[in-house]
Amino acid sequence: MSETADMSRAETTRSRLLEAAVQAFAEKGFHGTTTRDIASAAGMSPAALYVHHKSKEELLYLISKDGHEATLALMRAAIAATDSPVEALHQVVHDFALHHTRGHTGARVVNYELAALSPEHLIEIRGIRHQIEEEMRALVQHGVKTGAFDTDDPYMTAAALLSLGIDLARWYHDSGRWSPEQIADQYAGMALRIVGA
Amino acid sequence: MSETADMSRAETTRSRLLEAAVQAFAEKGFHGTTTRDIASAAGMSPAALYVHHKSKEELLYLISKDGHEATLALMRAAIAATDSPVEALHQVVHDFALHHTRGHTGARVVNYELAALSPEHLIEIRGIRHQIEEEMRALVQHGVKTGAFDTDDPYMTAAALLSLGIDLARWYHDSGRWSPEQIADQYAGMALRIVGA
Repeated sequence: MSETADMSRAETTRSRLLEAAVQAFAEKGFHGTTTRDIASAAGMSPAALYVHHKSKEELLYLISKDGHEATLALMRAAIAATDSPVEALHQVVHDFALHHTRGHTGARVVNYELAALSPEHLIEIRGIRHQIEEEMRALVQHGVKTGAFDTDDPYMTAAALLSLGIDLARWYHDSGRWSPEQIADQYAGMALRIVGA
Repeated sequence: MSETADMSRAETTRSRLLEAAVQAFAEKGFHGTTTRDIASAAGMSPAALYVHHKSKEELLYLISKDGHEATLALMRAAIAATDSPVEALHQVVHDFALHHTRGHTGARVVNYELAALSPEHLIEIRGIRHQIEEEMRALVQHGVKTGAFDTDDPYMTAAALLSLGIDLARWYHDSGRWSPEQIADQYAGMALRIVGA
């Protein structure tokens, strides 16, 4: 078998393990999940899991890193696409809500299992979270400076805007009353009200 | 020793166990916590714990019941205190935010460990959550009907208002930038903007 085919098979196995880990962590929490649970959900032995990942914590770290980087990327893309703070905030909150509803299982693990990360990994993930917060703060401050927004405390406003989006991962369910698109549209509108646009 | 003194000693022990359980569940999650952890944090043996509580799940249920009932009570008190939907919403969101910041450790357990409840207990707790949601919906709908508020979708608006308050339990820390009172005031103001008051 060629090296490329080997690589791609290893990649497939790794992503199957990550998916199984997301499901297990979301259902039973990090501490309530065993490597055996993850391995068997991915159709392999615990020994085979260790060939691909050093530990259960490493799986959590990879899930967490992917999730945070995706969130940061979608915010930066939305902000870069326009000069208008109103349009930018509308798009950021829309896309953030879409990401946290469509991917609610992963987003739940990403946001509620931080305490289970190793100290080194936690520092790295907190760094990405800090950048996410900074993007939102800078956007709100920019809107205030240009007169597009009106709010006393841009920092707390930014915290509340992120909070609204993150909490979607907790309460959103696929069989609920609203589609991710409906929520994204309404939340974008609420965000503009919150900043006094 | 009198029966009353026995009762009160049992009560003290029970509340010490509940406090120890809140701390342990908030730190390590329900599934990551053993009855031994809880017993030793309360300064007693696992066997002594079972004298007072049937199981770890029963402790979670009592914590959850207390927390949800306290939230429902503060909402009803705030709503009953005025005829004005604006004043009522301001007070509800203010008190809800205060409750979820000051009591963030307990609120975290109450909101993020529902899946660990027994099926019967989950039904009971969901019943109280449903009443909490109904109070917020009725308040937003009342405001829309009287022309005090202006929002397309009172149901989703109510969900977002509760979401903002609940997520405080996730991110609020005692050593943070803002006091519970500062957050409560700002959040009450944001809530009025969200409903278009």
